Amino acid sequence: MDLEHLGESLARVRATSPLVHSITNYVTANDCANALLACGASPIMSDDAAEVADITSICGGLVLNIGTLNQRSIEGMRVAGARSAELDHPIVVDPVGAGASALRTRIATELVDTLPVTVVRGNMSEIKAIAGAAASTRGVDAGPDDAITRDNLESSAEFARELAARLHAIIAITGAIDIVADETRVRAITNGVAMMSSITGTGCMLSCLVGAHVIASFDERLDAVVSAVACMGIAGEVARARMDALDGSGSFRIYLIDAICNMDAPTLDRRARVEVL
Amino acid sequence: MDLEHLGESLARVRATSPLVHSITNYVTANDCANALLACGASPIMSDDAAEVADITSICGGLVLNIGTLNQRSIEGMRVAGARSAELDHPIVVDPVGAGASALRTRIATELVDTLPVTVVRGNMSEIKAIAGAAASTRGVDAGPDDAITRDNLESSAEFARELAARLHAIIAITGAIDIVADETRVRAITNGVAMMSSITGTGCMLSCLVGAHVIASFDERLDAVVSAVACMGIAGEVARARMDALDGSGSFRIYLIDAICNMDAPTLDRRARVEVL
Amino acid sequence: MDLEHLGESLARVRATSPLVHSITNYVTANDCANALLACGASPIMSDDAAEVADITSICGGLVLNIGTLNQRSIEGMRVAGARSAELDHPIVVDPVGAGASALRTRIATELVDTLPVTVVRGNMSEIKAIAGAAASTRGVDAGPDDAITRDNLESSAEFARELAARLHAIIAITGAIDIVADETRVRAITNGVAMMSSITGTGCMLSCLVGAHVIASFDERLDAVVSAVACMGIAGEVARARMDALDGSGSFRIYLIDAICNMDAPTLDRRARVEVL
Repeated sequence: MDLEHLGESLARVRATSPLVHSITNYVTANDCANALLACGASPIMSDDAAEVADITSICGGLVLNIGTLNQRSIEGMRVAGARSAELDHPIVVDPVGAGASALRTRIATELVDTLPVTVVRGNMSEIKAIAGAAASTRGVDAGPDDAITRDNLESSAEFARELAARLHAIIAITGAIDIVADETRVRAITNGVAMMSSITGTGCMLSCLVGAHVIASFDERLDAVVSAVACMGIAGEVARARMDALDGSGSFRIYLIDAICNMDAPTLDRRARVEVL
Repeated sequence: MDLEHLGESLARVRATSPLVHSITNYVTANDCANALLACGASPIMSDDAAEVADITSICGGLVLNIGTLNQRSIEGMRVAGARSAELDHPIVVDPVGAGASALRTRIATELVDTLPVTVVRGNMSEIKAIAGAAASTRGVDAGPDDAITRDNLESSAEFARELAARLHAIIAITGAIDIVADETRVRAITNGVAMMSSITGTGCMLSCLVGAHVIASFDERLDAVVSAVACMGIAGEVARARMDALDGSGSFRIYLIDAICNMDAPTLDRRARVEVL
Repeated sequence: MDLEHLGESLARVRATSPLVHSITNYVTANDCANALLACGASPIMSDDAAEVADITSICGGLVLNIGTLNQRSIEGMRVAGARSAELDHPIVVDPVGAGASALRTRIATELVDTLPVTVVRGNMSEIKAIAGAAASTRGVDAGPDDAITRDNLESSAEFARELAARLHAIIAITGAIDIVADETRVRAITNGVAMMSSITGTGCMLSCLVGAHVIASFDERLDAVVSAVACMGIAGEVARARMDALDGSGSFRIYLIDAICNMDAPTLDRRARVEVL
């Protein structure tokens, strides 16, 4: 598998239908479950410490999303993370709103510091908060000073690569331009449309898709993450193109899940815009 | 009311608009509430032990769904169940993911053993877990060995009937073929489409519809459950037929709720495929 | 700004994109977040006492919705409310289901009695429960005896104005006719369609829109509330007009968010039906 064949990552998800355990926020949990089903995976949501070890044991991997974090789900994340680590399962961390509260920053940092995390996926403000860098978070959105642009692409890429090396994890920073980095390689993905920030949950859904792809193609996990990111961006483009004059963000959200559902490997290969940095 | 007049069950739901108290998971709670409204009932969601007795007292019945089970909702289910029992309200149990964790199996078993449950609705793996039989659960989906087919229909029907006798409850096992059984009677319903397993929540929504139908027609509750199951299956067929080339699971989910909303008694009578086993 | 220029309130929301902290129920949290984004605001949901003071501090205002109330969210509401009060942030209270349980009535009453609430938005049964008046609540819906009609409009308006004076808050009572009152002024808004009560969450979404409008136009907050109420009603009309024969409540819900997304100030000004009482 290489960058010419991102579609293979999607094909593997559909062929293996990985079970993905998500501990996630209640705002976008339904979209996350439906996005996982749309891409060919199977979702299980469970956050109580009394059962998460059982649940994660029957799954292929774990996605930890800290939106609407609470004392129960924090304990659930710790127990599930420890069990996932024992089982060598891929773990994806989505640090929703890291930087927006001391609790979120502390728990996100704890998760990436104590668990053998495979991927961290967030916007630049959230990733900066985890890195201990000054961030300009605007709640759960990236602050305006944290936009990834052509002008700062090189320094953003280097920041991602350095953090990947420090955390021994793939770092996926999504925005107008998406960056995916491991310790030695950095990719930029330029798929996607501005409309994606007009609905809640695109980031949360993407983190789940990343989980599904990484479980299905663990040995080529950098490409698997790139594939998931490109897939979501292309789905956004397809959904946007379908909108008519009366459609707005409500229909766009439905069309986005439709487009994930109807995405096939050749389309993903043909439309993905990936640069090697 | 008999099997020729399933539509009467739906008509009674619309005529009486039963208030249904649901203690349910946060993944599909919105779909459950909207499905209840679409079928003519009124939803109330409430899971805290400090208020569930009050809430269930003003309702016509209770639906307990153990997805995203947690210590708070478990306590809420116990208190609400006890109060519902005192009031002789119908109680529906949906053992989401029973078999997938020891906690879910234990709580599902506790609920059906300690409460005067009217209906248990799940997939075959979940129902087997409750029955203490060996199941091949795949998370919240039935395992492949647990599919109901023409080949095992007779033995599946007998299993359902025996469990119904043991639990003094109607057992509804849904899959490619649906089975509804009480101590002496078994029905098979063959409505529905495969697409229904491409979205999360069809089972959860169905359990809520079952609750609404059973409240509205308690004296003919076997037929009421059959009516709810057929109604959901036909809604799936209507939704599937409406999909165009760009539509996927996102639109299907919306069309499904539309079809529940637009279902009428004559359509239900005409399209229901029910066999007496 | 005056009643001829309600659109200005919407324009200010879009120009300033206020961050709105919502502590809300898990049934409609997704719709609330998407409605806020659709009207031009930014949502943050967070309910744990350990972080709500941080979260609310970076926001422009707070919306407290007591659906699916629980011990954790109650504590979160108290802490967030106290911090919001210190910061002089607008606070909107949505007493979902007040009157349906002693807990909801008590907490709703506590919130409006102890916090410097800017707006209380509910149906007539919920508002009566807060006022300590006899109400005919039907769960989370207004009881039939609590409908606002032409016949009782004058007495309903006087009830709202008196409660506004007592609570030093704007009272918004929504139904077939909506009433918005402060201590001296009362407005009636007659936009909207019956279909809005066929989906869950229109009230919850409206309370969030009210929050966004009041943050953006605090000095003209009565008009801001009227603007949000009219905006939601017009969105309902637009969504209803768009429905075809196969569409039902599922599509209506999507079209409603589309219509909020596509609403512009001239449309709001032209279509708003507001009476000075």
